[in-house]
Amino acid sequence: MTDASLKTAAMLAIGDELLSGRTKDKNIGHLADVLTLAGIDLKEVRIVADEEESIVEALDALRARYTYVFTSGGIGPTHDDITADAVSKAFGVPCRHDAEAMKLLGAMYERRNMEFTEARQRMARMPEGARHIPNPVSTAPGFVIGNVHVMAGVPQVFQAMLDHVVSTLPAGTRMLSRSIACPFGEGDIGTLLGAIQKNHPETSIGSYPQFDGKRFSTELIVRARDEAVLAAAAADVEAMISALEAERDGNRPRDLDTGELA
Amino acid sequence: MTDASLKTAAMLAIGDELLSGRTKDKNIGHLADVLTLAGIDLKEVRIVADEEESIVEALDALRARYTYVFTSGGIGPTHDDITADAVSKAFGVPCRHDAEAMKLLGAMYERRNMEFTEARQRMARMPEGARHIPNPVSTAPGFVIGNVHVMAGVPQVFQAMLDHVVSTLPAGTRMLSRSIACPFGEGDIGTLLGAIQKNHPETSIGSYPQFDGKRFSTELIVRARDEAVLAAAAADVEAMISALEAERDGNRPRDLDTGELA
Repeated sequence: MTDASLKTAAMLAIGDELLSGRTKDKNIGHLADVLTLAGIDLKEVRIVADEEESIVEALDALRARYTYVFTSGGIGPTHDDITADAVSKAFGVPCRHDAEAMKLLGAMYERRNMEFTEARQRMARMPEGARHIPNPVSTAPGFVIGNVHVMAGVPQVFQAMLDHVVSTLPAGTRMLSRSIACPFGEGDIGTLLGAIQKNHPETSIGSYPQFDGKRFSTELIVRARDEAVLAAAAADVEAMISALEAERDGNRPRDLDTGELA
Repeated sequence: MTDASLKTAAMLAIGDELLSGRTKDKNIGHLADVLTLAGIDLKEVRIVADEEESIVEALDALRARYTYVFTSGGIGPTHDDITADAVSKAFGVPCRHDAEAMKLLGAMYERRNMEFTEARQRMARMPEGARHIPNPVSTAPGFVIGNVHVMAGVPQVFQAMLDHVVSTLPAGTRMLSRSIACPFGEGDIGTLLGAIQKNHPETSIGSYPQFDGKRFSTELIVRARDEAVLAAAAADVEAMISALEAERDGNRPRDLDTGELA
């Protein structure tokens, strides 16, 4: 792809609890939805344990390859919250208690008449030079360094932080999509659909099988960044469905033999 | 870790629809649950698009590093189902229509009075030398080659295939766990809990914050592969909670000053 406006992204979800099954991730699907709307292509997701080496290695692989990296998890007050340390290590900068974050958190605990313990102060730690991502839910900020956006694992907090982050990113060229209901199963359309995909290389055509208890059908999604490109591919998909319906009904349409689908 | 019975695993979930948000993955959490019960450590998960290069690269990284790799998705009948090709490429063997799979699928479509189309025949393709993973739901088999287990993306089929696969694997040393309810928030216990984790390096202690609308509490999970190791760490966690409760209630317990937690 040579389109300079094409923005790509990866997600790194951090946490033993995701890998043990104790917590079922809710952030990946949400990020995917939000990025798709923003015209940013989510290309890869990794989930790793709360282990510094694993986090640093994944982070280095992803931040080199994609426009943006978004992380979730590991920025709370306990010993297994080591994301700030790992990100600092990946960027080769010290991990410090950020003065502004200490002020925000200190004031919040004072208002709530709670002790600002050493553990709670851990939530103010971030790599030197990082900028805050505001946390309207529970105060402790996320942070941005380079192209890496570090957010909380708790879904409500992740979502609030992400809303802010996405509003600061230049939008990519939005992906357009068209959904076409197809009364045939994947096995009936697979070969024809493959040919259409080949003829429209700038589109991405996905097929999603459905089963109503009696028979299979398919939802076909055509995606492209250009309306004319999208329309041309969608027209071929619709012609394929009409041709198959005519065949099923015993009336071969007059133009089928000369069309691309014959 | 030097424990030869320690089995590790990675998952590779394959599919554009997971990265666009159109489909929310349900297989990762299920695999995590099943492997935890089987004593196999899920160490990493990756989600990649339906792109051969991305699949091959992830597969090669994961299969070299972990005892087992489990994949989901991309083994259906359409043009974007390229998992069999990618796995064959990673292992350097041809991808062929498997004779036994052709027979199974051919018989199934005959029974259902449906045409065994070229697209449907794609579901019989697998790397030369692969063994079948039976599919009691919709016939088209998954397959195993080397340490890689290739399964369907549809959750009902993934789950049925996984049940079979797990029954064929030698179980690892099962991880034991104990859950301890803690009436204090993470900010109150973080430092003490970090010290306990440090004193019990063979355990993994996780803390999961809970909020009932009024105050924070925590569920603490201690995990270890050995019952005595687990019991020792759990005892220290319980002592920590008792000490904090006594402090909160104004009665310092007589042994707190001399204990590890002081």
